[in-house]
Amino acid sequence: MTIKIGILGYGNLGRGAEAAISQNDDMELVGVFTRRDPASLTLATPGVAVRSAQDLLSGAPLDIDVLVICGGSATDLPQMTPKYAARYNVIDSFDTHAHIPEHFAAVDKVAGENGHVALISSGWDPGLFSLNRLFGNCFVPQGTDYTFWGPGVSQGHSDAVRRIDGVLDARQYTLPVEEALEEVRSGSNPDLTTRQKHTREVFVVAAEGADTEEITRQIVTMPNYFDEYDTTVHFISQEEMDRDHSGLPHGGFVLRSGAMASGATSVIEYSLKLDSNPDFTSSVMLAYARAVARMSSEGQKGCRTVFDVAPAYLSPRDDGYLRSHFL
Amino acid sequence: MTIKIGILGYGNLGRGAEAAISQNDDMELVGVFTRRDPASLTLATPGVAVRSAQDLLSGAPLDIDVLVICGGSATDLPQMTPKYAARYNVIDSFDTHAHIPEHFAAVDKVAGENGHVALISSGWDPGLFSLNRLFGNCFVPQGTDYTFWGPGVSQGHSDAVRRIDGVLDARQYTLPVEEALEEVRSGSNPDLTTRQKHTREVFVVAAEGADTEEITRQIVTMPNYFDEYDTTVHFISQEEMDRDHSGLPHGGFVLRSGAMASGATSVIEYSLKLDSNPDFTSSVMLAYARAVARMSSEGQKGCRTVFDVAPAYLSPRDDGYLRSHFL
Repeated sequence: MTIKIGILGYGNLGRGAEAAISQNDDMELVGVFTRRDPASLTLATPGVAVRSAQDLLSGAPLDIDVLVICGGSATDLPQMTPKYAARYNVIDSFDTHAHIPEHFAAVDKVAGENGHVALISSGWDPGLFSLNRLFGNCFVPQGTDYTFWGPGVSQGHSDAVRRIDGVLDARQYTLPVEEALEEVRSGSNPDLTTRQKHTREVFVVAAEGADTEEITRQIVTMPNYFDEYDTTVHFISQEEMDRDHSGLPHGGFVLRSGAMASGATSVIEYSLKLDSNPDFTSSVMLAYARAVARMSSEGQKGCRTVFDVAPAYLSPRDDGYLRSHFL
Repeated sequence: MTIKIGILGYGNLGRGAEAAISQNDDMELVGVFTRRDPASLTLATPGVAVRSAQDLLSGAPLDIDVLVICGGSATDLPQMTPKYAARYNVIDSFDTHAHIPEHFAAVDKVAGENGHVALISSGWDPGLFSLNRLFGNCFVPQGTDYTFWGPGVSQGHSDAVRRIDGVLDARQYTLPVEEALEEVRSGSNPDLTTRQKHTREVFVVAAEGADTEEITRQIVTMPNYFDEYDTTVHFISQEEMDRDHSGLPHGGFVLRSGAMASGATSVIEYSLKLDSNPDFTSSVMLAYARAVARMSSEGQKGCRTVFDVAPAYLSPRDDGYLRSHFL
């Protein structure tokens, strides 16, 4: 069975999903949908149409098995995912952890009423990191969870710096503190403050004549974003920014450490090192899109998360192959 | 709901499972069953009976939700798991990778015909390492798999050394080669031979007057076990063996490395560092026993593996809690 994929939104994530389809032989891209002028986009895939997002909503539903929604979590997805779940099986990467319960409820209602499967918050955090937090708690019931992010670019923090007066461009890297990681790996279950776990490094292109000391002060004292961290600020030229900081690498570490009933320590570590955050995220989304298609074909409906997906559903291989090759 | 657990077999794994029940509030140990004389065993849990394994098979089935079968893979489990799956939901840690398909078929037939759920090959390899091999292949479709074991005690290799003439006691450690691990972590996708990935270190207590050079020669040239590895042999006293080598630590690393469609490299790493292999393995088995109880209560039947279990089924927490705390 070929899974017909539609992509809604053509930013970094949408372009990553489009490219990732070429690595998944059981999938076919049937269309990219945009809220921009379709004529303004040129796809990488020959022969695939760019269409208006409105086409998904007007007339009869299109022949799409799973719609991969590539929007932002702040304002796009809370509106988009329920809306499109009324007409399609959908998947998103909603990543505002605190609002997941209400997003789930809104999507579950619409998907359930309309007989579709929706999977929210796929990707790597939430997503694969969430899975490893859950697994760790089940296998080491009495222990401590640790999540470290980076080294990688935080787009939210980069955007926050760009809003400062006199800043033309900015890139923020989140860096895990290696000593803290090593302490966790040792099984000593340390209590770590926010400042002890991560540092932040910011590269800024300042406007001609801008007050770099004042920019630095505004960055390192910015509430929530920087004030609880040790932050280093570097001023560079736009040329250096474009040459050295155009990628979107990311990654991180999830650890669970604790004592078994005997007192013996167990440490579980999961880590990702990604040259491209959106490319990996969209590849994970496609694997979960496969699971959505399979759950829907079984007659399931409603909202799901990565916690509800049996791992075999992520693979194009049959169960016998999985048992003999991967078990 | 309290899950009533029976434990069959009271070696390292059975004792680990017994202890692990104290860390799982939704579980209750209803009995330990043995093929030895029940009077010869003293349990760590007060008020729980040691009974003959035969009691599981004669008369009406006992009130057990899941029977945790703690036997050896070579000869015990191929017989035991199908036999007990006829009367109970069961779980085992069958770890002879090459024979998993036939074990699955035998267990599936009996469990399916008798309306029970059986989960085979739980633990960490097969088990959690298998999950990570599967996940890696789904999220990085074009890449290379690497599994490194250790540092840890291989009981099979220790037993093999003990069978050599003049050896009174032996302990074999499998050690991953750090340089090879680092090469994989770099994303360079190296081709690695068996010898490049692991070394072996053996501690031997020799009989008085034994030919230690001959023992060493027999160890390092032993086909399948040692001949493809660089092996170091140390002769120590029984006192040193008991003092320094009584634990059963183990662990290892599963890595998946490859290029996304854009060419960007992704490296996924999963690792375990376990002071006690049997204690952790039995803790994992209990989490999967919870899933077995839940799948059975839903009316499922037949054989399952870790690939078939939605992660939420491993947790005693409800889905809403999991979404708000772990996602």
